Amino acid sequence: MTETLNRDEPAADELRPSVPDPQSAPSLLARWSKWLGRPVAEPERGDEARPLSAREASRQRSLLQPCFQARLTDVAANRAARSWQEQYLAADAPRRGAMLEVLAEVGASAGPAADKTAADGASDLPRALSHARVRFFKRLNALPDGLPFLLALRTDMLEWRSRIPALQGLDADLEGLLSNWFDVGLLELRRITWDSPASLLEKLIVYEAVHEIASWADLRNRLDSDRRCYAFFHPRMPNEPLIFVEVAFCAEMADNVQLLLDEGAPMENLDKARWAIFYSISNTQQGLRGVSFGNFLLKRVIEELNAELPKIKRFATLSPIPGFCAWMARLGRDELLAAAGKPGAALLGDDDGAALAARLRAAADPPQDEGLQALAMRLAARYLVARKGPLPLDAVARFHLGNGARIERLNWGADLSRKGRSQSASMMVNYVYELDALDDNLARLSEGRPAMSRGVSRLL
Amino acid sequence: MTETLNRDEPAADELRPSVPDPQSAPSLLARWSKWLGRPVAEPERGDEARPLSAREASRQRSLLQPCFQARLTDVAANRAARSWQEQYLAADAPRRGAMLEVLAEVGASAGPAADKTAADGASDLPRALSHARVRFFKRLNALPDGLPFLLALRTDMLEWRSRIPALQGLDADLEGLLSNWFDVGLLELRRITWDSPASLLEKLIVYEAVHEIASWADLRNRLDSDRRCYAFFHPRMPNEPLIFVEVAFCAEMADNVQLLLDEGAPMENLDKARWAIFYSISNTQQGLRGVSFGNFLLKRVIEELNAELPKIKRFATLSPIPGFCAWMARLGRDELLAAAGKPGAALLGDDDGAALAARLRAAADPPQDEGLQALAMRLAARYLVARKGPLPLDAVARFHLGNGARIERLNWGADLSRKGRSQSASMMVNYVYELDALDDNLARLSEGRPAMSRGVSRLL
Amino acid sequence: MTETLNRDEPAADELRPSVPDPQSAPSLLARWSKWLGRPVAEPERGDEARPLSAREASRQRSLLQPCFQARLTDVAANRAARSWQEQYLAADAPRRGAMLEVLAEVGASAGPAADKTAADGASDLPRALSHARVRFFKRLNALPDGLPFLLALRTDMLEWRSRIPALQGLDADLEGLLSNWFDVGLLELRRITWDSPASLLEKLIVYEAVHEIASWADLRNRLDSDRRCYAFFHPRMPNEPLIFVEVAFCAEMADNVQLLLDEGAPMENLDKARWAIFYSISNTQQGLRGVSFGNFLLKRVIEELNAELPKIKRFATLSPIPGFCAWMARLGRDELLAAAGKPGAALLGDDDGAALAARLRAAADPPQDEGLQALAMRLAARYLVARKGPLPLDAVARFHLGNGARIERLNWGADLSRKGRSQSASMMVNYVYELDALDDNLARLSEGRPAMSRGVSRLL
Amino acid sequence: MTETLNRDEPAADELRPSVPDPQSAPSLLARWSKWLGRPVAEPERGDEARPLSAREASRQRSLLQPCFQARLTDVAANRAARSWQEQYLAADAPRRGAMLEVLAEVGASAGPAADKTAADGASDLPRALSHARVRFFKRLNALPDGLPFLLALRTDMLEWRSRIPALQGLDADLEGLLSNWFDVGLLELRRITWDSPASLLEKLIVYEAVHEIASWADLRNRLDSDRRCYAFFHPRMPNEPLIFVEVAFCAEMADNVQLLLDEGAPMENLDKARWAIFYSISNTQQGLRGVSFGNFLLKRVIEELNAELPKIKRFATLSPIPGFCAWMARLGRDELLAAAGKPGAALLGDDDGAALAARLRAAADPPQDEGLQALAMRLAARYLVARKGPLPLDAVARFHLGNGARIERLNWGADLSRKGRSQSASMMVNYVYELDALDDNLARLSEGRPAMSRGVSRLL
Repeated sequence: MTETLNRDEPAADELRPSVPDPQSAPSLLARWSKWLGRPVAEPERGDEARPLSAREASRQRSLLQPCFQARLTDVAANRAARSWQEQYLAADAPRRGAMLEVLAEVGASAGPAADKTAADGASDLPRALSHARVRFFKRLNALPDGLPFLLALRTDMLEWRSRIPALQGLDADLEGLLSNWFDVGLLELRRITWDSPASLLEKLIVYEAVHEIASWADLRNRLDSDRRCYAFFHPRMPNEPLIFVEVAFCAEMADNVQLLLDEGAPMENLDKARWAIFYSISNTQQGLRGVSFGNFLLKRVIEELNAELPKIKRFATLSPIPGFCAWMARLGRDELLAAAGKPGAALLGDDDGAALAARLRAAADPPQDEGLQALAMRLAARYLVARKGPLPLDAVARFHLGNGARIERLNWGADLSRKGRSQSASMMVNYVYELDALDDNLARLSEGRPAMSRGVSRLL
Repeated sequence: MTETLNRDEPAADELRPSVPDPQSAPSLLARWSKWLGRPVAEPERGDEARPLSAREASRQRSLLQPCFQARLTDVAANRAARSWQEQYLAADAPRRGAMLEVLAEVGASAGPAADKTAADGASDLPRALSHARVRFFKRLNALPDGLPFLLALRTDMLEWRSRIPALQGLDADLEGLLSNWFDVGLLELRRITWDSPASLLEKLIVYEAVHEIASWADLRNRLDSDRRCYAFFHPRMPNEPLIFVEVAFCAEMADNVQLLLDEGAPMENLDKARWAIFYSISNTQQGLRGVSFGNFLLKRVIEELNAELPKIKRFATLSPIPGFCAWMARLGRDELLAAAGKPGAALLGDDDGAALAARLRAAADPPQDEGLQALAMRLAARYLVARKGPLPLDAVARFHLGNGARIERLNWGADLSRKGRSQSASMMVNYVYELDALDDNLARLSEGRPAMSRGVSRLL
Repeated sequence: MTETLNRDEPAADELRPSVPDPQSAPSLLARWSKWLGRPVAEPERGDEARPLSAREASRQRSLLQPCFQARLTDVAANRAARSWQEQYLAADAPRRGAMLEVLAEVGASAGPAADKTAADGASDLPRALSHARVRFFKRLNALPDGLPFLLALRTDMLEWRSRIPALQGLDADLEGLLSNWFDVGLLELRRITWDSPASLLEKLIVYEAVHEIASWADLRNRLDSDRRCYAFFHPRMPNEPLIFVEVAFCAEMADNVQLLLDEGAPMENLDKARWAIFYSISNTQQGLRGVSFGNFLLKRVIEELNAELPKIKRFATLSPIPGFCAWMARLGRDELLAAAGKPGAALLGDDDGAALAARLRAAADPPQDEGLQALAMRLAARYLVARKGPLPLDAVARFHLGNGARIERLNWGADLSRKGRSQSASMMVNYVYELDALDDNLARLSEGRPAMSRGVSRLL
Repeated sequence: MTETLNRDEPAADELRPSVPDPQSAPSLLARWSKWLGRPVAEPERGDEARPLSAREASRQRSLLQPCFQARLTDVAANRAARSWQEQYLAADAPRRGAMLEVLAEVGASAGPAADKTAADGASDLPRALSHARVRFFKRLNALPDGLPFLLALRTDMLEWRSRIPALQGLDADLEGLLSNWFDVGLLELRRITWDSPASLLEKLIVYEAVHEIASWADLRNRLDSDRRCYAFFHPRMPNEPLIFVEVAFCAEMADNVQLLLDEGAPMENLDKARWAIFYSISNTQQGLRGVSFGNFLLKRVIEELNAELPKIKRFATLSPIPGFCAWMARLGRDELLAAAGKPGAALLGDDDGAALAARLRAAADPPQDEGLQALAMRLAARYLVARKGPLPLDAVARFHLGNGARIERLNWGADLSRKGRSQSASMMVNYVYELDALDDNLARLSEGRPAMSRGVSRLL
């Protein structure tokens, strides 16, 4: 069971329930372009690979094949790898597709060293690492800009994977290597402040996935002396945050995000603060899908804050409920009745899920109708504990409950932004992190009984 | 063939043909002790494990078992790992032996995730990385001081491996992980100068394995403005060089080490220098045995020097021949005759190898007898091309020829130190690195024909 | 003559002809407030000192008097100075006025060490430095935050100087000390880029005095890779630029500022650029009035650029002509006729200066009337060479001509901002810096013949 | 009185009572040579200036004269200054003497700006700073390496001052400027540790003036984790300590230096330490003679230690008594009798000072004769309170008493080195620093009653 949980850990990008439309968002490769100091083509979704001529394909093969071979000295192979890397960066999306097809073909014919199996007895790792594909990626990694290039390459591979099935094996090997190279033991936790380089802060604006950063003034407010922002960095990419969390301090557990984002609000008095509120967590690297930092980041930040601000005793999130309205709209009449329970049935009228969702959208903001509020909160609680297989249905709940947190409180009118209203009827939820309860909470989750406060359980 | 070469790449510590007696040398763990800021027991060779009581062993098992289990949230498991780490660091060698026995036992019963095989098709890596032993080491790596602790742990495991066979699987997994975590793409090449921290320079004195650093004045001479010293560092161990190379610049290819180490010698005029001489390469981390940096280091340094000092066109080593005299002393009369060849036979008299070795030792320093010199150089050339299986017999030759270098010149009287005289009758050898020839040289080596200059081939 | 020039060097704030209304601008003290991390009262222009009670005044005297005394050990005096500093920072403007009155009174009764004169023969400096007022300021300087506090104090002293004449002596001593402590030999030239801390870049936005920085995007454009920004910093105030200059590179000498400030303009091709254009120089510290960096900054930047970008051969400003329209409006009919010269007279009609200024303001933007343009340019050239005593009348001309630059070209329609149109009928001027001509140009200036190009001299 | 004290503050080099023979010591200029990265001639004591030819002298004058002139733009003058600087650095000592003669001649004819007097009323500083000599030094300071060059130049000027009287005025101006440029408010206090650059630590070995550093192992012992070493640095000379102090921590006030310097002694347990012992203070820059840092350094270090190690409550020195034996040897019979007092007279026998000094030297080490010990300690106490004019006779006492410290204890056998035995019959003295008593102690000193413990006063 826990195995399963581990394996199905929320994918890196599920933390960002509202990733902006990839067509309009500045793409990862555009950012690499800046990073590398030279223009880089952006693949476009839906592009078709533009077939290479036989001669070109043959040239590509000649470049790639030595890169997969094992030679202790490999001047020629490294030059070939460098050359392939440069061609790849200069290519547009359709050509990249074609280059990936050749890569997949060459990679498919590669294998592990023939003599590895027996020697190492019970361990599979030496044999797996002796695989020619592993050697290929390690060769790329050793080039200048190698690591960020591999992240860009994997971003593309994930994009093209469905169209080029032979990429699967390559992707599995690359994900394995990246999970080692980005092992949390190798990462550095750094605080980001208003004294950080502007070029770094600009990335927060781009990457922030939960509550959009509207301006530099908004950003400055989030980095004020009554806030904290922490990120993990890889030592070979020192100006590229991998994941970051924004923290506010409050005397009480925060119940709405408007106040937290209000640039005009007075500074919190840190002497009186008892709660640290994680109000935004954003992953940044699509190329690291499947490699998870979030759980570890939160625990490291809790340790840091315990040491620096001993008066802060309690830790909670203020989190979106991204799938609630969409889930409700899919409910038929009977399901809705079941979910609303007896006290809710009366308030439902004849609505099915879609009709109720429409009613909530049409209501004032936030709806003044207490019955409607009570019904919506009851349904939201029901949604938060809904499962898909053994795991919570909601991506954010899956992440925090999977970390061992507890569902603490539903907050009405907590996010009045357009996104908040359309996704979750303006509700948000607090998940509480108590270090000593995390293991138990997780054990209960694997038995199908997620941890929750009395207040929330009463809604069920 | 090249596969084989790659696999049997000279082990990290074979580069140091004259590692001082481990009993007297400051041990790695003594250094970790400083690094960690607390005392650390040193294992002693030949120690026997001191059996744990049944109760102690059971406690150890209770600590270790959760460390191998997979839970996304693992507060308790991390505390257990921390506790085990602290007990291990505080233990003396016999107790460590016993702790390793329990570790091997627990590790042996661990396995990969049951459901990993099918999913990933052709790639073994995900399954290998899902192994519980991998999880254990990653857990340790995430602790503070995790990476240096793992190096210390592996140093011990290598020591105890022959006495505790079940450590094999653990060691294979740990070596695999370390080879990724210390991938050259993650390392930093840094120049070490007289402006580097004294605490770092002190380590060069401790680790230098080829030509002992006699004093701070000797060290300063090696770091003068007419020299270079480069090392690889891991970003998580920023003050711990992993491997370092010392470079001198000369107008001609250096033919003896006395001049290079003479603190009173005048500064080289860099304007007139055309040769860079690598006169010492030392690995430092026993815990990284099997993970190779030397080949890559030399190529990176050649690139650096090409960029900084374009007048330096040629790159060579001035290397010891550590096994020569011992090899000769083992030769019977017939083998010796064969090795000496016709021109040498006349000079041999009735000697067998042992007698000739004794004669060389008894001769003046360097022997003035031209016949003796000619004979010894002929035999040395023969020794350098001798093989053990497919690989060069001499550890240093194995390293440089395996990198694609060429045997360039034998130098008589090149190392008059006691070690130089007793190991190689005072001879040293130059290996030349020509970037564009490395691949070809290596191909010839794999066909049994190591690259060598005309001068050396004439000696054969 | 040169003495005179030196003495009357354009005051620090004259470089900013259009300093925004001090009432509305963020005051220096507001910035210190951030710098010091605590609130600081802002003096208001026109404030009257609020008299202290006799008891308060007596307490102030007791604090200040020991601060002026010489004792090698001065624990008590330093505590008194610290206490006075804190009271001063906490005081509002009227109270500060009163505190400065007491300070002036105590300072007036202090003097140099009695025995200093004879001993040092021809040097006045030891005696001047032995003055008790010097000791007072050195004592303040040795406190934490001492140097920025002294700058804030002097800013206030300059404000109150007209109302408290006894501050003159104190101010003269403090200016002397600051001129030493901010000696250019102690300053650091640093390039400011988009990788600089956001908190530092924010100061550029606040301090920029010539062409207002409208947004972070505007700022980013000015720090792009085809631009440069350099500033002097004092090592004790490492995040506080003292003066900064913004540089653009062009293939030709720039003739309008719109293009330079256009965020959408394509990047300059640095390979084709031959000109470096200084398009904005801003002093930042009112407390350093009388201490000049500008001349030195430009020469240091020219040296830097010569070394980094050898293709850049020519250096010029694109400068405002801040006093032109105001000067013209003050001209009577006869003066105007004289200034316009014969070719201009015909174009004048019956206008006096005020009428002509009104006509220019009413014209299209830029005026399409060629006659009007020719007239205005002729008058502007006349204005640039006008003098007040021995020095150029226009503050910006005074600065650049005083540095040895040459008037190169008048540019019509060069600054279409509201400020540019109202101050100089949208004209700007290029001053050219040729290192080898600076001394000669200055010599000519002191003879009343400022250096100018043939084009400009033809306008006269 | 306090004025006088202040003025006659112990000269920088008097803190080093036992500066090694300047002939054999590595000279300041040799160090600048390294610092500047090029060879620099060393002046030799007793050298005579080698007269310049009339043509050379005239060329020198042509170089120097523009350097003294005031021009806002001064490209030519700065080039002349640069050229003079380079000639000076390349010159040998006799030529430097001649160059200084020309410099003195040119400097003597320079003066302050004619128009400065009246304008500034009561302040002499503006006029003093307008002096052409000040301008000359500021011009040199603005050159690359300007500040270290000025220190080297002043070192020479002090050397040649007696032979070239006209250097007096130049020296007075330069000292005044240096006292501002090295104002303690501009300096940085930094801790020096074993992690500091070896090139910096090497300077400690060279500069240490009190207890010679015998080896790197000795140095390492002084920088161990149970010790502290602090130095002042100027931001423009970041690798050049100006003054440094070595601190040990003890449970009791240290009574001998052997234990402190014993490399084999066990680490102090910082938890049990209550005393910080300043056992060595060394100035490093002869060119800063007359500019004092020691008093300020000790107080800053006391503040640092109060903050970092609150258990350390008491601060004392363990200081040499450098002039004791020499003073005693000069005493005639009557003076000696007077100094020894009644109890001492009996122990004297017929000795005069010289005889007694010889007796002490001939005695065992330390003398076992209790009478002799009692007599010597009585005389040493007498010596410590002896005055020369208003100030303590002993240079070290002058420094510490002038800082407000108290004579706490005489320690017999406290320095058994050759120097210790010959200078002070192996005695050392503790001076105690109590921050709150410093001012009072100084006031008493100025009345001729230096502060001392009851134990010491009993010896009188």
